[in-house]
Amino acid sequence: MNEFALIAARFKPLASDFPGSLGLSDDAALLDMPPEMQLVVTADTVNEGVHFIGDEDASLIARKALRVNLSDLAAMGAAPWCYFLALAMPGNTEESWIARFAEGLHEDQRRFGIALAGGDTTATCARAHVTITALGLVPKGEALRRRGAQADDRIYVSGTLGDAALGLRCLRNQLPRNDFLETRYLLPEPRLALGAQLRGAATACMDVSDGLAQDLGHLCAASGAGAEIWTDRLPLSGAARACAEAAEAALCGGDDYELLFTLPPQAQAPAGVTQVGIITQQKGVRVYTAQGGELLPASLSGYRHF
Amino acid sequence: MNEFALIAARFKPLASDFPGSLGLSDDAALLDMPPEMQLVVTADTVNEGVHFIGDEDASLIARKALRVNLSDLAAMGAAPWCYFLALAMPGNTEESWIARFAEGLHEDQRRFGIALAGGDTTATCARAHVTITALGLVPKGEALRRRGAQADDRIYVSGTLGDAALGLRCLRNQLPRNDFLETRYLLPEPRLALGAQLRGAATACMDVSDGLAQDLGHLCAASGAGAEIWTDRLPLSGAARACAEAAEAALCGGDDYELLFTLPPQAQAPAGVTQVGIITQQKGVRVYTAQGGELLPASLSGYRHF
Repeated sequence: MNEFALIAARFKPLASDFPGSLGLSDDAALLDMPPEMQLVVTADTVNEGVHFIGDEDASLIARKALRVNLSDLAAMGAAPWCYFLALAMPGNTEESWIARFAEGLHEDQRRFGIALAGGDTTATCARAHVTITALGLVPKGEALRRRGAQADDRIYVSGTLGDAALGLRCLRNQLPRNDFLETRYLLPEPRLALGAQLRGAATACMDVSDGLAQDLGHLCAASGAGAEIWTDRLPLSGAARACAEAAEAALCGGDDYELLFTLPPQAQAPAGVTQVGIITQQKGVRVYTAQGGELLPASLSGYRHF
Repeated sequence: MNEFALIAARFKPLASDFPGSLGLSDDAALLDMPPEMQLVVTADTVNEGVHFIGDEDASLIARKALRVNLSDLAAMGAAPWCYFLALAMPGNTEESWIARFAEGLHEDQRRFGIALAGGDTTATCARAHVTITALGLVPKGEALRRRGAQADDRIYVSGTLGDAALGLRCLRNQLPRNDFLETRYLLPEPRLALGAQLRGAATACMDVSDGLAQDLGHLCAASGAGAEIWTDRLPLSGAARACAEAAEAALCGGDDYELLFTLPPQAQAPAGVTQVGIITQQKGVRVYTAQGGELLPASLSGYRHF
């Protein structure tokens, strides 16, 4: 099957309900912005051998690539609108792999209310790479930002932390296999409803993709503030608690895609989130154990590509 | 240098004049659409070993990645607005390579009036991959489309054709080295001014990236029409004329990034373009030589990734 037949068969159906895609048959998409909205745009890449292993079901690779972008939209309080797919894959990729990849996208498009609007399929010499650029919409002036946290604001996270980092170790057979943890790595849950709910309430927000300690450092730097967090408050799943590395994974592991946000002291927190610390005037992130000891910053580095 | 220091040092300056980038320090860009405009969005990938060789000056790789996207904006009649860069590169990439890459982007940002608004830098296991998603703006209802060509419309192309395909052969030492042809491959010229000029005039437009014969087939299919073109009308550069393969490269070679468009019979053509044929009611693309012979369709296939 050649490139154009492939696009027609597998990707045009993903764009057919979205007029701005022009049916994927022009040089670019043509979009009408709804009035009174701002456009939120994010681009994230997942690379075989780095962000995914390569032998996963292709539908999971597709869904993760989409979801890490949706998580960025959630972090800004935006609603999903449309996305652009740049799929680079080896020339000998099986059609069945591409079919599964498209099925995964289709499933998550329905689930999250987003449509394919354009993109590019290319051949690589070796491994697969997926870049998705996602566009979201947020009412004017209401986007969540990383800056804005103030001293005494409470620091919250959604869901549980560390599961994904532990799940990756399970998939690599460094820990016993565990479906729950592995699924948390393979298929993160973008917190779109929570992000929307936090508009007008959170003083700062971002998603946790590179480890809580490191990402909180970015939120604090953007806000000109610092933070202290308490390891005994970290929300851990039952499966994570069974692992000796749970607290380290929760602090430093990547791929959580939970929301990290701050609320003023008097604010009511939404359901299902956990306070893990407090914003301080003193810069930097300090991590305290239940015994009152402080973890050294050197033990808190998160994921870095370089 | 770690990922965050790298982004700060090399990429933040590319975004500093564009408020919607939020200084690259949030989870996504936040953009205010100018009123009365439509958004034009395109995403294109260039892969090492496929779209570029790998030993080029990194500034050329960056500029080509940006320009192939700008060419799509030109094809729709849009003006450049901002772009998102997904740069995947081996973990051992030299800082000097990244510096040259950023310099190339900076140079073309100034030249074409576009700014970096966001993106992602990631590590790959082996080769580099660059995906750029470019956003452009076009006055409402004025975007150029592939559909719309009608029988008797004249078919035009900008510039000269086939240079890039010949230039690639020079770079691969399949032809004698030639600076002009090689530069045409390495650094295409997006026809933004022409695209803007064609708004309200051209009945159909696209860019030529996969060979004139194949791309004209797409334009005709979108328009529900056909075409005949004449090989003796193909615009060839002096350097191309010196190659035996010039006509074949002009018809079937990729990477031209010239505009292919149609005008009604009575319309005045802009300066610097060449009529290469005419739209017909009969479907399909027919290519005639100066002697009146017809080239077989099998000899006219353009570039395909698969």
